[in-house]
Amino acid sequence: MTRPPLPAALPESDRTRHRRLREQGSLDRADLDAILDAGFICHLGVVVEGRPLVVPTVYGRDEGQLFVHGSVASRSLAGAAPVCVTVTHVDGLVLARSVFEHGVNYRSAMIHAVPRKVTDPAEKLEGLRRLTEHATPGQWDYARRPSRKELAATTLLALSLEEASVKIRTGAPDDGDGPDAELGLWAGTLPLAAVWGTPVPDPALAPDIAAPAHVVRRKGTRHG
Amino acid sequence: MTRPPLPAALPESDRTRHRRLREQGSLDRADLDAILDAGFICHLGVVVEGRPLVVPTVYGRDEGQLFVHGSVASRSLAGAAPVCVTVTHVDGLVLARSVFEHGVNYRSAMIHAVPRKVTDPAEKLEGLRRLTEHATPGQWDYARRPSRKELAATTLLALSLEEASVKIRTGAPDDGDGPDAELGLWAGTLPLAAVWGTPVPDPALAPDIAAPAHVVRRKGTRHG
Repeated sequence: MTRPPLPAALPESDRTRHRRLREQGSLDRADLDAILDAGFICHLGVVVEGRPLVVPTVYGRDEGQLFVHGSVASRSLAGAAPVCVTVTHVDGLVLARSVFEHGVNYRSAMIHAVPRKVTDPAEKLEGLRRLTEHATPGQWDYARRPSRKELAATTLLALSLEEASVKIRTGAPDDGDGPDAELGLWAGTLPLAAVWGTPVPDPALAPDIAAPAHVVRRKGTRHG
Repeated sequence: MTRPPLPAALPESDRTRHRRLREQGSLDRADLDAILDAGFICHLGVVVEGRPLVVPTVYGRDEGQLFVHGSVASRSLAGAAPVCVTVTHVDGLVLARSVFEHGVNYRSAMIHAVPRKVTDPAEKLEGLRRLTEHATPGQWDYARRPSRKELAATTLLALSLEEASVKIRTGAPDDGDGPDAELGLWAGTLPLAAVWGTPVPDPALAPDIAAPAHVVRRKGTRHG
């Protein structure tokens, strides 16, 4: 499926307009792409009988769409109901002189869309490939791919990336030039980073089967 | 404020009942407590004009309540509207023999509540203390505490922890005893862990001010 490229600037709508001051709202699609590419878990919000439900789930993407499994919150995704998908990377604590100025350094993307159920088998397979490769690059070519039966048993949803917004906070606390700077208190940030560990073989695995290179080489690398 | 202790078993409701098989639903309040205590960022879901909105924000807690800043999604939290708060820790990728059996090891808690605006100044101060100490133990006694004016400018919401559910997935892939085990493919998990880094001083800080022990000692420790 060929689609026109999305505009480099994210659209401003009632939902994506930035309202708060301390965070830095971005309307740059490159920021959105970077945040989505850096993670693989999103929080999917749906409305069920008037109440919100927020479910963590894995995602993949192509240039213009996000893919998620339809099994999450499936009872609410039956219709063409709008969802909100939020991806957040926490980069550290912002420790100011005053409690009031404390905060968090983070990168967060929020996508508003009405999910489309992917029904075409070829498109579904490609969506699952994207989802698999997004979390574990190299795995689609390594693992056994979905059978026709498994493919039919999988619900895949596609969400347009057209309506999205980004918030990013970086750097030092904001009270370094105010009266609190005279208090003699330490202020700064405490970074937080997620790191991949050593692959753990399934205990059921024959001992002569080594972990593939695309898995092993992530060890010690940063995620997020 | 003294409250009766919450029951050790989480309540089953239409919203908290576990529907999926692969994840392990827990109805043990100790699991809920452990997940909440291990993190400080939640994803808060609200309904705005019939559409879901999912916002990342910091939280704190006491025995029976979660505290969040009311400034997040403030336009939607004006009334007594229900929210869903989800806290998720991602522990690694589950790499099975088949793509179909791939998954994620994680711990997730979901809380359903109608937020209560905290208005009593003493209760608000105590809530902010919990919130501050939850993210950075030791910081409440170190940083300058909120002034009366700052306290008035802060909206704090309290959410009951009564209606909550927990999902946990741990361990190896599920296809170690099926026909796919004969494929000769490696299978296992790739762990992911968040680790605190070295404190970064605010560039505006006088060089003779050292980071306090309660911040420095987190370096290299695991979060989540």
